[in-house]
Amino acid sequence: MSKIKTALIQQSYHGSKINTIDKTVSMIEEASSNGVQLVVLQELHQNEYFCQSENTDYFDYANNYLEDIKFWANIAKLNKIVLVTSLFEKRAAGLYHNTAFVFEKDGSIAGKYRKMHIPDDPGFYEKFYFTPGDIGFEPISTSVGKLGVLICWDQWYPEAARLICLKGAQVLIYPTAIGWFDEDSKDEKQRQIDSWITIQRSHAIANGVPLISVNRVGFEKDNSNVLDGIRFWGNSFVCDAQGDITIQANNIDESILYSEINYTNSENIRRIWPFLRDRRIENYSGLTKRFID
Amino acid sequence: MSKIKTALIQQSYHGSKINTIDKTVSMIEEASSNGVQLVVLQELHQNEYFCQSENTDYFDYANNYLEDIKFWANIAKLNKIVLVTSLFEKRAAGLYHNTAFVFEKDGSIAGKYRKMHIPDDPGFYEKFYFTPGDIGFEPISTSVGKLGVLICWDQWYPEAARLICLKGAQVLIYPTAIGWFDEDSKDEKQRQIDSWITIQRSHAIANGVPLISVNRVGFEKDNSNVLDGIRFWGNSFVCDAQGDITIQANNIDESILYSEINYTNSENIRRIWPFLRDRRIENYSGLTKRFID
Repeated sequence: MSKIKTALIQQSYHGSKINTIDKTVSMIEEASSNGVQLVVLQELHQNEYFCQSENTDYFDYANNYLEDIKFWANIAKLNKIVLVTSLFEKRAAGLYHNTAFVFEKDGSIAGKYRKMHIPDDPGFYEKFYFTPGDIGFEPISTSVGKLGVLICWDQWYPEAARLICLKGAQVLIYPTAIGWFDEDSKDEKQRQIDSWITIQRSHAIANGVPLISVNRVGFEKDNSNVLDGIRFWGNSFVCDAQGDITIQANNIDESILYSEINYTNSENIRRIWPFLRDRRIENYSGLTKRFID
Repeated sequence: MSKIKTALIQQSYHGSKINTIDKTVSMIEEASSNGVQLVVLQELHQNEYFCQSENTDYFDYANNYLEDIKFWANIAKLNKIVLVTSLFEKRAAGLYHNTAFVFEKDGSIAGKYRKMHIPDDPGFYEKFYFTPGDIGFEPISTSVGKLGVLICWDQWYPEAARLICLKGAQVLIYPTAIGWFDEDSKDEKQRQIDSWITIQRSHAIANGVPLISVNRVGFEKDNSNVLDGIRFWGNSFVCDAQGDITIQANNIDESILYSEINYTNSENIRRIWPFLRDRRIENYSGLTKRFID
């Protein structure tokens, strides 16, 4: 299999879980009717981005995660797609993860990835909710290839992309939820989104694989009223194994982005830009240090 | 010291070592007269890019490297600048390195970096000439800060940038020599230069440091007549700790780029985008593997 018909679903929060899921499902059905084999959803797509504040009530969102898994498994099966979801996993009382479940076309679980790098900054209080992942950077084998699923804050870490590609990932996939604060200047906003796009493209380049990034869109109020809220900047995109952006959403609209992921291109690119050949692994042990002082 | 007045010297080869050096020195003098504290030259700036073919005669270029060191040390002293050079180091018969020597304002050697990642592809036969560096990724302490000097092919490796920054580099500096083959399509050329700029910007972003990249410019024939030659694409640039490009040369002209490197900005950026805080070092040991199969 050398080319994968893929859809990215960039979405807003629709005021409730049920309304949001209804919209997601209708978009998946539309994508499926257009013949896609792989659908990628954004980070924590069932709910509002609740990490804007630290509130123990939000842990309730994970109470039904086993039902959530069954629900999305069935959606994958009904639409005959490989489906990358992003759920709030309750593993035990007081032990939760930000977890991407990947479902096969037959509704079985292909695998899961627990977000490894957890952010914490004003409006993004994820360290309160999510225990850092403990299953490492393992690609997920599916009928459409080995998927290198990572999540949001992971995208700032070249280590994560490299490790999952060294384990054979054929494509990098980032469900994400990132946005602007309205009070920032236009220039600062531009720098932020540029750096977000740039660092992801660089992972495609460094590893010679295509990359899919799916971001949330729309304004979500901070329910704690400490900050105003986050204007999620959308701009979901696909780039090829050279980092060239092949399709990109805007920063306003919900949208389905269709893209053909080309694995053959990785073979070609890696032959003439053979970065894996020349890594100085005998000199890389310092990468396992916090700082080298 | 929070801001460093810097000059990047983007140059062509002028038909001989002496003519090329004359031009370099005049550009350094001009930069110095404009008050810069740090000057960065491009990769192997004394000669043509001789690695276009494998020819034992070219090892003669390294015969006078001790004199080269004295020469550039004196230029640094005369102009009262910290100077980043890129020389062909003869260490022993049959043992050569692609080495950046950094000189202090008083003409002393501040340190050296031996290129760690060595490329080899048609027109860039560096593995024939250069033994891979054996002194690792060590920043060089100078009166204008700890300089993270890496060279050309190193720029494709996030590992190199990370390691030198974990060791305290305050700025990444890449002398480089990269260009196009005329027979490639316009689109392919654009993808190549985009990926080159993107991956370097990503190192600034991932590590929260400014970055200086100085590239050769102009067409140089392949003296072996196997290929036509390389059209070095210039585009030397500086970006800040957010990856934002602050100045950039074109792909045709020799030029002196003036830029103020801002170290304080790194402190500010790393406070709110604290990527170093969240690295999952206990899960990074795989980075010292060639491939994880």
